[in-house]
Amino acid sequence: MTNAQVTLIQIDNYGPWTVTPEPRREVDLQTLQSRLYADLSQLVGNREGYVFFTRFDNMIAVTNGMDETDHAMIQESVGNRYPVTVSFGVGADPRPVEALSTATEHIQDAGSAQEADRTEILRGTCLDPDERTDDDVQIAHFDVNDATGKYTDEMNAFDSFIHIEQGYAELMRYFRRAHGGLAFFVGGDNVIAVSPDLDAAAYEDTIQHVQEAVEVELKVGVGQAATPQSAGMAAKHALEDCREDGDRVVID
Amino acid sequence: MTNAQVTLIQIDNYGPWTVTPEPRREVDLQTLQSRLYADLSQLVGNREGYVFFTRFDNMIAVTNGMDETDHAMIQESVGNRYPVTVSFGVGADPRPVEALSTATEHIQDAGSAQEADRTEILRGTCLDPDERTDDDVQIAHFDVNDATGKYTDEMNAFDSFIHIEQGYAELMRYFRRAHGGLAFFVGGDNVIAVSPDLDAAAYEDTIQHVQEAVEVELKVGVGQAATPQSAGMAAKHALEDCREDGDRVVID
Amino acid sequence: MTNAQVTLIQIDNYGPWTVTPEPRREVDLQTLQSRLYADLSQLVGNREGYVFFTRFDNMIAVTNGMDETDHAMIQESVGNRYPVTVSFGVGADPRPVEALSTATEHIQDAGSAQEADRTEILRGTCLDPDERTDDDVQIAHFDVNDATGKYTDEMNAFDSFIHIEQGYAELMRYFRRAHGGLAFFVGGDNVIAVSPDLDAAAYEDTIQHVQEAVEVELKVGVGQAATPQSAGMAAKHALEDCREDGDRVVID
Amino acid sequence: MTNAQVTLIQIDNYGPWTVTPEPRREVDLQTLQSRLYADLSQLVGNREGYVFFTRFDNMIAVTNGMDETDHAMIQESVGNRYPVTVSFGVGADPRPVEALSTATEHIQDAGSAQEADRTEILRGTCLDPDERTDDDVQIAHFDVNDATGKYTDEMNAFDSFIHIEQGYAELMRYFRRAHGGLAFFVGGDNVIAVSPDLDAAAYEDTIQHVQEAVEVELKVGVGQAATPQSAGMAAKHALEDCREDGDRVVID
Repeated sequence: MTNAQVTLIQIDNYGPWTVTPEPRREVDLQTLQSRLYADLSQLVGNREGYVFFTRFDNMIAVTNGMDETDHAMIQESVGNRYPVTVSFGVGADPRPVEALSTATEHIQDAGSAQEADRTEILRGTCLDPDERTDDDVQIAHFDVNDATGKYTDEMNAFDSFIHIEQGYAELMRYFRRAHGGLAFFVGGDNVIAVSPDLDAAAYEDTIQHVQEAVEVELKVGVGQAATPQSAGMAAKHALEDCREDGDRVVID
Repeated sequence: MTNAQVTLIQIDNYGPWTVTPEPRREVDLQTLQSRLYADLSQLVGNREGYVFFTRFDNMIAVTNGMDETDHAMIQESVGNRYPVTVSFGVGADPRPVEALSTATEHIQDAGSAQEADRTEILRGTCLDPDERTDDDVQIAHFDVNDATGKYTDEMNAFDSFIHIEQGYAELMRYFRRAHGGLAFFVGGDNVIAVSPDLDAAAYEDTIQHVQEAVEVELKVGVGQAATPQSAGMAAKHALEDCREDGDRVVID
Repeated sequence: MTNAQVTLIQIDNYGPWTVTPEPRREVDLQTLQSRLYADLSQLVGNREGYVFFTRFDNMIAVTNGMDETDHAMIQESVGNRYPVTVSFGVGADPRPVEALSTATEHIQDAGSAQEADRTEILRGTCLDPDERTDDDVQIAHFDVNDATGKYTDEMNAFDSFIHIEQGYAELMRYFRRAHGGLAFFVGGDNVIAVSPDLDAAAYEDTIQHVQEAVEVELKVGVGQAATPQSAGMAAKHALEDCREDGDRVVID
Repeated sequence: MTNAQVTLIQIDNYGPWTVTPEPRREVDLQTLQSRLYADLSQLVGNREGYVFFTRFDNMIAVTNGMDETDHAMIQESVGNRYPVTVSFGVGADPRPVEALSTATEHIQDAGSAQEADRTEILRGTCLDPDERTDDDVQIAHFDVNDATGKYTDEMNAFDSFIHIEQGYAELMRYFRRAHGGLAFFVGGDNVIAVSPDLDAAAYEDTIQHVQEAVEVELKVGVGQAATPQSAGMAAKHALEDCREDGDRVVID
């Protein structure tokens, strides 16, 4: 049984900040956002978790293995180094989408994302060490079959991106609705998903659906472990097995 | 008349590198990609240009005002600081999508994105100073009406993202097909587009289409100038005017 | 009794790399060095350790609480994100200078700092969990009395720096020779030292010596704990007590 | 004739900020300082200038070729991305030390480095384009003869550092007093100096003095150009010539 611990990371009052006292230069906003994401990746990654950039002002992390103190330390570190602060909501559930809903409610209950005095919220409950098991986190790593040969080396870079984006968008929507998992584009032709306890048939179904809906062919490697890091690395190795053997789904 | 200079930035042989000798830790890849993007944002932004992260392994930049020497210097700086190198293709055209096609062909002609010995390509022709005019670059800055009130503060963070992503995806596809512009998600509920010489009717049409297709309501500010930076800042101010006056389209 | 675990971090073959095939741009080298240091600070700091920049190509870390796996992970993370690699030597001893000597010998035994094929060395023995105690690390945080009033706001910025540097240099040399501690400039008018098990008299002696030798007046806060982070934070609070009470030495 | 334009960069009210409301974690301060320096290196370096880290809270830059607008843009970019702001004072003079004195006075006149409401000062006069000449900036790049063989591979890393530091400290003091130049440690065994219009004899004298005073043997390459970048690169090539030919001083 999975039991994903999901943390919603929200930059406090970010929209208003970007246009106060007048619009800030886009290059600086882009730099700020991507470096904040890189730092959070390292801060969470050094504690065996994964962060997905999502919208950049709202990021979603899988944080099994991290407790309240870890979250507080990361929040403090961001506040020490950036002109903005971040709020955290935490939830845990066998279905990642439910965990995220809980995490989101914790932040929403504390006030609006655009409320100047709602800052550095840290709410929700992290899993107790004795609640944790060795298969709490299932990670699936998808990529597009021969994306370089079919798209990158053939189409203009925007049309390649449209194709990959269509595959990713359909995957993201279908996987959430049909199977309760959270799928995130992570660059290139790669999507990483946090899944409930799914079997190969669920992944076959998902890949089949995306192919029929938008004609993008995917394959997927799946891993399961106590932490996102271990599950994710197992998923990567499973995806390498797909590549070598021509399989569409390999579960580690 | 617009005349966008577009640069395709491609990380050389990145896919194979990420799994050699075995899959590298995802946290490090995410950090590498987002910091490389941040650095390119600064390097190009300090020369009045804009970079969009797109797929991260392929990024698209608008570089009016930058010559071959600037491109070469940026390429060298990346090579001096990262374990990977980048190739650049450059094109210019009244229609951004044509400029990008030319830029892409320059890189594709030099070899595959996954060819180990095709590195640090720099091909294509930058605009001569005397070819440049004060209205070469049209930038449009879109955002979602009341995204915080309708989505961020109401839905779980993944479903908010799905809504915003659907709006962005439809905008990206339609705007490219119907009007020849290149639209990019830049975080939050924001999309920035590099446009050909469009008038208010084209933007009204685009917003109308997105609303009908996926029920996401957008507004847009538009600026035009000799460089992406100036056009983009004018677009931001125009978008602020939309906010204040309740307009859907403001052209600076 | 203290028992500092010290790690020497050496960039592999860095000198030759900076001039191959010809001298690289200084701005890129400076950026590379300072960001590598920042990343190591975070990677080690997230594991309760401290890194000092020293010469930047050779950095010295206090790593009580980190084991071989932690070191290997950090080494891998640097290799994944930089064009250079790093070697680590580890030693532990009641006297920090002896710990560092051991750490250095481990690296030197593996080959020269400028040998192209001596890369990613990881040698030495980390403290076993059951060898560790609550007072293994003594950290002293020095600063200059009224540096802003006497120097920064009065002299030109270079002459201020000469004064502070003289104080720091004398402190560094004397404290190593007379007391076996390792003192490092950390910016501003601050020096942080890793000390053996010293009492207030040793610090009084050190401050007295620096004042007589180069007329720079120091004060110091001292903390002791199981990890550099905790000892260092205690030292900072002790230094605040000095400021409030006008003391020259406060041991937490 | 040289005519160095020197900019003093001072973090506003930094000391108090680091301990408010209580001492901030050292790892975050170290990360903040070194990344701010890296960013300033890039921002100034992309405009052909050099920044030296000096004390990190006070940095010294050579900025020939940069005007007030460039300075203001960099100041704004720092403010957009950091929790601290910076002030700039600018001066120009045939003797770098005089230029720095002017730059420092501009900042000091505006208030103390620890005054909470003295922020983002930008004072002083940048060189007019028609005042600038092709030999305004003389840069000297020193290093220690066989530092790796004599120190790094032989002594413990702290004692190596003491030797190099002694050489650097003596060079810094003597070169300022005897010749009016500003010398800065830049990592490894390297020192880069901004010089007035000096000839080979002045450099011979400096190297001789350091050898007699502290027994550290230096060599130096010198370049002169309109910008720090070009002068510095010429100095690096001259230093390579020293290495190949066994010379102590090579002026490009």
